[in-house]
Amino acid sequence: KKNYRIAVLPGDGIGPEIMQEAVKVLTLVGELEGVTFTCEEGRIGGIAIDTDGTPLPEETVTLAKQADAVLLGAVGGPKWDQNPGHLRPETGLLGIRKALGLFANIRPATMHSSLVDSSTLKPEVVSGVDLIVVRELTGGIYFGEKKRYDGPNGEVAEDQCIYHEAEVERIIRVGFDIARKRQKRLVSVDKANVLESSRLWRKVAERVAADYPDVELSHQLVDSCAMQLVREPKQFDVIVTENMFGDILSDQAAMLTGSIGMLSSASLAAGSFGLYEPVHGSAPDIAGKGIANPLATILSVAMMLRLSLGMDEAAAAVENAVWSVLEAGHRTGDIAADRSKAIGTVEMGQLVRDEL
Amino acid sequence: KKNYRIAVLPGDGIGPEIMQEAVKVLTLVGELEGVTFTCEEGRIGGIAIDTDGTPLPEETVTLAKQADAVLLGAVGGPKWDQNPGHLRPETGLLGIRKALGLFANIRPATMHSSLVDSSTLKPEVVSGVDLIVVRELTGGIYFGEKKRYDGPNGEVAEDQCIYHEAEVERIIRVGFDIARKRQKRLVSVDKANVLESSRLWRKVAERVAADYPDVELSHQLVDSCAMQLVREPKQFDVIVTENMFGDILSDQAAMLTGSIGMLSSASLAAGSFGLYEPVHGSAPDIAGKGIANPLATILSVAMMLRLSLGMDEAAAAVENAVWSVLEAGHRTGDIAADRSKAIGTVEMGQLVRDEL
Ligand SMILES: CC(C)[C@H](C(=O)O)[C@@H](O)C(=O)O
Ligand SMILES: CC(C)[C@H](C(=O)O)[C@@H](O)C(=O)O
Repeated sequence: KKNYRIAVLPGDGIGPEIMQEAVKVLTLVGELEGVTFTCEEGRIGGIAIDTDGTPLPEETVTLAKQADAVLLGAVGGPKWDQNPGHLRPETGLLGIRKALGLFANIRPATMHSSLVDSSTLKPEVVSGVDLIVVRELTGGIYFGEKKRYDGPNGEVAEDQCIYHEAEVERIIRVGFDIARKRQKRLVSVDKANVLESSRLWRKVAERVAADYPDVELSHQLVDSCAMQLVREPKQFDVIVTENMFGDILSDQAAMLTGSIGMLSSASLAAGSFGLYEPVHGSAPDIAGKGIANPLATILSVAMMLRLSLGMDEAAAAVENAVWSVLEAGHRTGDIAADRSKAIGTVEMGQLVRDEL
Repeated sequence: KKNYRIAVLPGDGIGPEIMQEAVKVLTLVGELEGVTFTCEEGRIGGIAIDTDGTPLPEETVTLAKQADAVLLGAVGGPKWDQNPGHLRPETGLLGIRKALGLFANIRPATMHSSLVDSSTLKPEVVSGVDLIVVRELTGGIYFGEKKRYDGPNGEVAEDQCIYHEAEVERIIRVGFDIARKRQKRLVSVDKANVLESSRLWRKVAERVAADYPDVELSHQLVDSCAMQLVREPKQFDVIVTENMFGDILSDQAAMLTGSIGMLSSASLAAGSFGLYEPVHGSAPDIAGKGIANPLATILSVAMMLRLSLGMDEAAAAVENAVWSVLEAGHRTGDIAADRSKAIGTVEMGQLVRDEL
């Protein structure tokens, strides 16, 4: 019987509640597919700061490295917001990305037809939106050298945005590989009219394009892309971009669908290893109330099954179970038109398992 | 009789056609108000590359410096897209910002009620949107040191994002000053959980806030702001942010209104000097056809009258004339629901002058 080791990092806020439902779904998938998932819990973020004095204990990194894939809930909360940088929950997130070499962040923004009304955009503009933002995750201005010093006019702060050709190439290839399996349209987003790193980015994209003659590559400036996402989101199939632009555009794209409680993301290393997490945050305001939407985390399980474990059919089964539950009209508070009919976290998880 | 010197830089594409209408409106304002506007033309962008071999001739800088204010059309076009950096139209734009010390870019995004249908967002989400993005325009990653060199894994490219405390302070003050005259709500946007320059930014914003106890300051992370602009744009009054984030967010905000052919912007130096331009670009595809919308450029004239020349009443008169023409149902192609009824550039300009 095949056994997979899954590192489970519930994190803060609603993290533990939604993760519980995701793990139950995973366990059921194991029973149905005749494989074992050995789930081992680790700490990251605020909970780790409180318990271990650091947002990313060495133990957690080791646990993750020994696993076949990682499931993450969410990190952060007001309790740690005033902490110095090295004691902030996000630092744990940035740290684990770097430690595990998770250079490719895959962020689908898909408008599911039964949720079209949740969007603030007109139905005809968003229905059918199905795009993926591929974001470089371990380079650029996020990980460049930072400086802070006193100058003649007060303090000075510096962030270095640095990209190596090899870093750009591997993420561009991820973009092309994904586009090839979809509509074969890749938009590379940069700011080549201003930034040197963007000019390198564009040059590499052009070079790599020669290996993918079946995929249509185009370039968009980041400001223009932010406009086009609002104007006509359906024009996009796959977007590939650097870390900082990807942070902004993937969140903008997610919000176009109006239901970020439904969106999950994958952060992949070379090979099949990856970390999977919902796009929404730790939502401290509703933590512990049992009302959080577990679907994005459950859909993260599906992404994991597909991208890290090669279990495509099981992944599709989980996704279909989620869509069926939605089509039957069940909603958690965040996506409910009528909040009085909203169901809770555990109930939603149970419905998905029943459907499975 | 009072005389103002206005530097007029039509630029490329539709620049000359729309500028012509704007100048006619300005001339009429002069007659009505009993002042003279001496308009002196200069070259910038592609036309300057072709004529002078540089996108920003020294002559143009001198002309602008001697003027009371500058009106700019638009720069750029496919003809110069493959040029090396120093021979690209945008380099002229970046150059004039720096040369004239235009550190504060004021970008209003206002949803005019008669254009609500142009938006891709639902009417109830966008009607009443009235926000201003205040963007730092001469610092940050745009003007930091750039490097390109060979490393062990191929080429390496670097952009430095650098901010001095004094630079941050002056733009934050512009944000507070504008908010004070409006709804008194200022959102400062940064990425303080990742960037050192953002941490300095936030610290300065907090310090300056003490001088504006009547204005409510809040902070948003740039990714979160990109989401909130889609989710609930009406929550915003004034947004203040650094150069790169402002480039993205101001374009995103502009597109929310669905009618960027209507939006103008001001780029201000210390004191009252400023450069005024429409937000839309040079639209090479429709250049010379006489169908471009001149209203954003005409509204730039209004901004100039108000912000650089202290002619508030004349500014309001121009704006009201524009709104009246729109309310009477006149539309250029870009904002027309029924394109067959669209009017041309000159006709639209004439209607505004008739109204004035
Ligand atoms: C929490 C933060 C550091 C992180 C990022 O900017 O990468 C988050 O916004 C994300 O997109 O995962
Ligand atoms: C043309 C380009 C350099 C410019 C910028 O990025 O500032 C433009 O996008 C703008 O916003 O005025």
